[in-house]
Amino acid sequence: MTSERIWTAGLVIIGDEILSGRTQDRNVSQIALWLNLQGIRLTEVRVVADQTEAIVEAVNTLRARNDYLFTTGGIGPTHDDITVDAIAEALGIGVEIHPKARAVLEGYYATRGGLNEGRLRMARVPAGADLIENRMSGAPGIRIGNIFIMAGVPHITAMMLDALSGTLEGGKPMLSETIGCWVPESEVAELLGATERRHEGCQIGSYPFFRDGRVGANFVIRSTEAAIVAACAADLSAALALAGHEPFPGGI
Amino acid sequence: MTSERIWTAGLVIIGDEILSGRTQDRNVSQIALWLNLQGIRLTEVRVVADQTEAIVEAVNTLRARNDYLFTTGGIGPTHDDITVDAIAEALGIGVEIHPKARAVLEGYYATRGGLNEGRLRMARVPAGADLIENRMSGAPGIRIGNIFIMAGVPHITAMMLDALSGTLEGGKPMLSETIGCWVPESEVAELLGATERRHEGCQIGSYPFFRDGRVGANFVIRSTEAAIVAACAADLSAALALAGHEPFPGGI
Repeated sequence: MTSERIWTAGLVIIGDEILSGRTQDRNVSQIALWLNLQGIRLTEVRVVADQTEAIVEAVNTLRARNDYLFTTGGIGPTHDDITVDAIAEALGIGVEIHPKARAVLEGYYATRGGLNEGRLRMARVPAGADLIENRMSGAPGIRIGNIFIMAGVPHITAMMLDALSGTLEGGKPMLSETIGCWVPESEVAELLGATERRHEGCQIGSYPFFRDGRVGANFVIRSTEAAIVAACAADLSAALALAGHEPFPGGI
Repeated sequence: MTSERIWTAGLVIIGDEILSGRTQDRNVSQIALWLNLQGIRLTEVRVVADQTEAIVEAVNTLRARNDYLFTTGGIGPTHDDITVDAIAEALGIGVEIHPKARAVLEGYYATRGGLNEGRLRMARVPAGADLIENRMSGAPGIRIGNIFIMAGVPHITAMMLDALSGTLEGGKPMLSETIGCWVPESEVAELLGATERRHEGCQIGSYPFFRDGRVGANFVIRSTEAAIVAACAADLSAALALAGHEPFPGGI
């Protein structure tokens, strides 16, 4: 069992298009996986509408609770892009044009019709903010304090995450090992709980699946310590085999 | 402009597997789309860990703010399934075995090895709760007050939603029309805002896309009034054409 510091992040997904069901979110999972590589654990996600009050509340709650707060969405050029203003309001600060963002956008749009009012909106940042590089489409992400303001379009978000890789302080990544088994989880529920209790600092998650009319489950063993994961996985495999099942490494 | 009552719902997604990035969530969008058909608007989603405190906080906040609260995840037979207990705690009530749920599970498992302790866990409900039918795998969903406790596995969730269809009071569904255009949204940002302001009770969302090196955007016009959607869509198409672009109905 480790008593090392655990670094955490919250995530606020800003966008009516997610809440309406029109758009399938991809950012929760890509940001969660990326954060884990940085040794940072995603603790909570909130999806809120394109409304100032909703954004302010979610941002202020989650930035206070976590080492880092990420947001996605609402930083484009159109009237429904209100993230920068809402976050500035959450922080009680003003909004300014970032000179480097303006220069980047001037360069990007030089051969694309020039900078208009909408495009200049993408150079606006909460006062004192830094930029996060966007090699994809010019308009940068924004860092202010422990808040990272990212694009909503997943492949642009991915570029911004890439630009941030290795720059944030974190702890140990959560490690995991998956064991699959063609057994209803309900048949081995006791066995799972008992195995988890024998390995401190370890969680076992149980995720059923259905294929071709057969029922099975993936058992995911998680810990920051490789030795604990390995010991728990070996113990669980042995327990499943002893109960007459055939565990297979990796799951499906 | 309508002053009719708007019915709202919150959604709490319970599951470490979503926060770890291991599992791609599908429930936000399927529940959002289903709610809209019932005339209910999804206002906020929270994804929380398999931890009692986190579940209690999210459930109590969102059930107070909305007409309905949905949860997904954590109602299976294993040790990490703590949703029922957490929601009972949020409501300050006990947990009991629901006789009908027990009977359903006894029937379901009669030919599948019988009811064990883990399986009986799935008959536990907050005291006084009703059941939501699950034709897929026996274990029912649960309704208590304005809270609907659903499975985490998306196709089981879908069955439960189907069982609830038409049973909840709602208002007018949000209608929408999408207009696509091969234009960077930043080029028409002003035009979009001005068009939206001319049509009260209507929002225009702008969602860029990238295909084969070309940039375009879907403009989504939303209102509960079909006439307002149609008028705004016609106006926007005309404005885009006047600006030299070629809008196409439906978007991509």
